[in-house]
Amino acid sequence: MAQEKKLVEAITSMEEDFAQWYTDVVKKAELIEYSGVKGCMILRPNGYAIWENIQRELDDRFKQTGVENVYMPMFIPESLLQKEKDHVEGFAREVAWVTHGGTEELQERLCVRPTSETLFCDFYSKIIQSYRDLPKLYNQWCSVVRWEKTTRPFLRTTEFLWQEGHTAHATAEEAEERTIQMLNVYADFCEEVLAIPMIKGRKTDKEKFAGAMSTYTIEALMHDGKALQSGTSHNFGDGFARAFDIQFTDKDNKLQYVHQTSWGVTTRLIGAVIMVHGDNSGLVLPPVIAPTQVMIVPIMQKKAGVLEKANELKEKLSAFRVKLDDSDKSPGWKFSEQEMRGIPLRVEIGPKDIEANQAVIVRRDTREKIVVSLDDIEVKVKETLEKMQSDMLERARAHRDAHTYKATNMEEFEKILIETPGFIKAMWCGEEACELEIKEKTGATSRCIPFEQEHIADTCVCCGKTAKSMVYWGKAY
Amino acid sequence: MAQEKKLVEAITSMEEDFAQWYTDVVKKAELIEYSGVKGCMILRPNGYAIWENIQRELDDRFKQTGVENVYMPMFIPESLLQKEKDHVEGFAREVAWVTHGGTEELQERLCVRPTSETLFCDFYSKIIQSYRDLPKLYNQWCSVVRWEKTTRPFLRTTEFLWQEGHTAHATAEEAEERTIQMLNVYADFCEEVLAIPMIKGRKTDKEKFAGAMSTYTIEALMHDGKALQSGTSHNFGDGFARAFDIQFTDKDNKLQYVHQTSWGVTTRLIGAVIMVHGDNSGLVLPPVIAPTQVMIVPIMQKKAGVLEKANELKEKLSAFRVKLDDSDKSPGWKFSEQEMRGIPLRVEIGPKDIEANQAVIVRRDTREKIVVSLDDIEVKVKETLEKMQSDMLERARAHRDAHTYKATNMEEFEKILIETPGFIKAMWCGEEACELEIKEKTGATSRCIPFEQEHIADTCVCCGKTAKSMVYWGKAY
Repeated sequence: MAQEKKLVEAITSMEEDFAQWYTDVVKKAELIEYSGVKGCMILRPNGYAIWENIQRELDDRFKQTGVENVYMPMFIPESLLQKEKDHVEGFAREVAWVTHGGTEELQERLCVRPTSETLFCDFYSKIIQSYRDLPKLYNQWCSVVRWEKTTRPFLRTTEFLWQEGHTAHATAEEAEERTIQMLNVYADFCEEVLAIPMIKGRKTDKEKFAGAMSTYTIEALMHDGKALQSGTSHNFGDGFARAFDIQFTDKDNKLQYVHQTSWGVTTRLIGAVIMVHGDNSGLVLPPVIAPTQVMIVPIMQKKAGVLEKANELKEKLSAFRVKLDDSDKSPGWKFSEQEMRGIPLRVEIGPKDIEANQAVIVRRDTREKIVVSLDDIEVKVKETLEKMQSDMLERARAHRDAHTYKATNMEEFEKILIETPGFIKAMWCGEEACELEIKEKTGATSRCIPFEQEHIADTCVCCGKTAKSMVYWGKAY
Repeated sequence: MAQEKKLVEAITSMEEDFAQWYTDVVKKAELIEYSGVKGCMILRPNGYAIWENIQRELDDRFKQTGVENVYMPMFIPESLLQKEKDHVEGFAREVAWVTHGGTEELQERLCVRPTSETLFCDFYSKIIQSYRDLPKLYNQWCSVVRWEKTTRPFLRTTEFLWQEGHTAHATAEEAEERTIQMLNVYADFCEEVLAIPMIKGRKTDKEKFAGAMSTYTIEALMHDGKALQSGTSHNFGDGFARAFDIQFTDKDNKLQYVHQTSWGVTTRLIGAVIMVHGDNSGLVLPPVIAPTQVMIVPIMQKKAGVLEKANELKEKLSAFRVKLDDSDKSPGWKFSEQEMRGIPLRVEIGPKDIEANQAVIVRRDTREKIVVSLDDIEVKVKETLEKMQSDMLERARAHRDAHTYKATNMEEFEKILIETPGFIKAMWCGEEACELEIKEKTGATSRCIPFEQEHIADTCVCCGKTAKSMVYWGKAY
């Protein structure tokens, strides 16, 4: 029992210290290891396998909309980064600079891509000539680097993995349509696969991407009541096209600038999964994304026939991502480990179960124990995984809704943030001054102007002037 | 017809200038585009899709042997790179150095990984304690950077995509076994998927990897008679373990150093596919790896019913990676394009075919035309793809065998290289001096000491002293 205690005691409870709980989980579930490079994490097999599943699911969804994958260089010449004014201002201060190649000093510094708009624009200016070349719907999976002062596994790291989609279109309408389409792909993916409900909306001008005409976002609420920006989709209009001279000949033989979009999600989504679904025993992974969905734990495995039956069971469940823990650890230790790693189902099978032709399924999220006959265990496992997936989404939605509040004045606003952290819906006049004031007073930022608007009051929660729109506010990661 | 001519004329013939033919094909088949960063290529959708298929196939094969994927940082602190003496000597002169993060100068320079042995070793020293932690069988898919003076698409570029496997074992035997196992995975993959036969063998000490005890290689012969090192697998013994202090407690409670391996293949494999299978009409892709396996080209597509039937056909062939070219280009132009891109099968269907309930399958490699009934076209397409795949391997093997020669003295050796370039099998005394002399005189290098040895003569082809082994020699990319 000493061993079992050790594993569980090693986690701080979320109620005591949520940030420490998070750090404990990512380490104890062996998702990451810190590297010798400041702010850079090692994604261990348990962590990377989640990313592989995210990639596979998203990549399929992208390709269904006509997107093709490419790979761009990781280096951007300084002069290229500087071509679009707002963009360089947004990124120049946080990039890593390569100054030497081998033993020679470079004539021009190269930055390690913080994002690849400039490279895609340079590329598009070479390969787009005619309306026949449009649209271009390209995406790449890669890592990017942003020199961060304070970092946190998955949420903010110097180097991180992501995908960045970059499209070019003949018309402004088509670009706007694609921007929204990809935001919807993200939101659907998060709900259906990660079991995380999203608020969809537009960023205020203050919060939008450097160089974008408009930025759309999906925002999720974590267990501690903080918001997490989980994916963004940008409409650039023809701003980059003008800076990079990306023109095409239209059907009337006239030169036109293309209209562009970009959109991305990162390994931050893994952070969202941890902070939405995890509990004080560790990670809880939605079945669809879990690298291992079922862990079989034999009980009294040294007794004749137990391991044999457990192996048979594994064979029987091969339609799922199933593993058998036949190591020489105690069952209790194995339970703790399976729980820490968030494996959705545990199937226990021992001599008594075998005698009764049954096994015990234990759900990771509710800990519900279900005794099932070995004859129809495949069906039961399938049903239980599906039930768990939908329950997790509903639980996350209920938690978010229970932690979404309305405020009509700053007193209410501040009280909510202190007493019951969560999303705050409040009216806004549209002025950046109010955003700044709210941030200074409360630490909360505008998360988005949601597509689904509600009328909460006539006046801005901050200045009292006529309100233009309802905004989601919150403290954010 | 002017259009068709333009596309085909744009390629230099391989007989005229093989290097120019290669460059023309990678550009015209839209595999790559040059970027603004010297020596870095953009992988376009046609090129990247081949890499995606290579990844999928190889990744499955790795995982079947127990390998797990991870992701390591792209930066290596200078002090970490210097920990293993031979290794740093091999790489320090060809890395890119990051000296500034944002606006600040770094206290210690970071290099962009040229390979990640040092990072894996540092990681292993943290996570390996007991024999229970072994083996570690990790791999990562990423890009690496080596500052190259002269570059060539896929074959040698400053940044390139690859996978690097890194394993740690309890015993020397297990490490050696894994080194050979992965070499075999590569060789089987190349034969079965890329239709390229490989010579398997060991590198001489002169040609082995910086820091390795032994390096194994797979070597292929290109159409022009030059060799291409296509993948390597290294056994490090405990050299890195000693430099990085990677020790574990064995079953007898004694501290032991681990034994390590690493192994990798790169986008260079795409270069091999081009140079082994391509012809004067462009690329020829083995069906198993082709992103598009079948291109349907409607004839007289404006005639009523043709496009409808072509779409039906596409539906019927949906078990394959099939596309329909219904653009407004001429059929001749479409043929040229499909051939340039190396799409294995073209299916032509026009009004007369429809009337006769048939279509015409055209093989990309032999240009053989096969008239087939629409009733059993799925079966015929499947058979034809399979036949093409095996024919391509056999043709490549026959070409290689016909261009593999024996030499027993330097006169023969030089004559072969000048008159009939290819592999040369010749005996070697084991001394580096002879390798250097051969290289200086002929430009050829030792490709490998093949596992399948033959006795060609008693004495070294160069110095005439007693021979130790038979070696494959050749000019190499």
